[in-house]
Amino acid sequence: MLMELIEKNRSYRRFDESCKVSLETLRQLVELARLSASGGNLQPLKYILSCRSEKNELIFANLSWAGYLKDWDGPSEGERPSAYIVILGDNQITQSFGCDYGIAAQSILLGAVERGLGGCMIGSINRAKLCSSLNIPERYEILLVIALGKPVEKVVIDEAGPDGDIKYWRDEQSIHHVPKRALDDIVLGL
Amino acid sequence: MLMELIEKNRSYRRFDESCKVSLETLRQLVELARLSASGGNLQPLKYILSCRSEKNELIFANLSWAGYLKDWDGPSEGERPSAYIVILGDNQITQSFGCDYGIAAQSILLGAVERGLGGCMIGSINRAKLCSSLNIPERYEILLVIALGKPVEKVVIDEAGPDGDIKYWRDEQSIHHVPKRALDDIVLGL
Repeated sequence: MLMELIEKNRSYRRFDESCKVSLETLRQLVELARLSASGGNLQPLKYILSCRSEKNELIFANLSWAGYLKDWDGPSEGERPSAYIVILGDNQITQSFGCDYGIAAQSILLGAVERGLGGCMIGSINRAKLCSSLNIPERYEILLVIALGKPVEKVVIDEAGPDGDIKYWRDEQSIHHVPKRALDDIVLGL
Repeated sequence: MLMELIEKNRSYRRFDESCKVSLETLRQLVELARLSASGGNLQPLKYILSCRSEKNELIFANLSWAGYLKDWDGPSEGERPSAYIVILGDNQITQSFGCDYGIAAQSILLGAVERGLGGCMIGSINRAKLCSSLNIPERYEILLVIALGKPVEKVVIDEAGPDGDIKYWRDEQSIHHVPKRALDDIVLGL
């Protein structure tokens, strides 16, 4: 059931780094994105795969984690992602990528969850430095980084309160709480 | 298996219009989007649901279909969508919606396919006229329209040729062909 996959597909930011993710798994996840919709069928997205420690470190160094958790700098060693998929836009195909990378990222993460993995879409990226670290040619624009691994944190969905505060937070047991707006607040009666 | 859902989830543009889609089904599909990821967890998307003929017609009148099929103006009566989900961005929450609507749209369409339905993300919209037809307040921006129904067309995936032509086309049997770039052309060896 898709609902089950979507419920399990939380944004995980702490992983068991000793659980490796193979290149073959990453390719299978990109295959899910490849067969997903693309505006005008242009398919302007390209992918960089990483599952080796040195490359992972290059990527990790250029990411910012969980903006609302002011006293947390991101996962510590041992709890960092085992793999990454960097989604690029190819400017030689188009300059406007619409929501293609959202469609692709959702397919990839649902596929990860189905394989007992999990991850997080990260948009807060030092793009200039990551381009230089990975020697990404100028024709490509970094759209999103997907961090992947075996999650070791518990994430629960709460209902957003009447004040509409949607900032996620962690309780004393390190359980990560994510307030979601209610269905009746997002479906308009128009 | 997710791969099966994704393979079945083609962009369908011809439907059996006599098969209705209930409001409850549309709400279940938005529930899938509600529980999906959102940048900074802001959840700025709002949804308009339509499954009645008059409202469907208002929406249909403001859509453009299948840009590459120059001799096809869109589905004829009897083959039009039975329902729509209009995805809006709420400017009172943020002015930048990132790829949230791609994530949401993918969840919605995979959910539709799981229910034996199918559909198409449509970005070519007469936004000004649709806003006025549906009385959409100024704070909302139309991001995407998802057309939904019981598909009556066959859509097949082809491998894009060496010339990289990705324009979809219809053969004499009205089978819709969609050329996709090969996995090795979208995974970069960086």
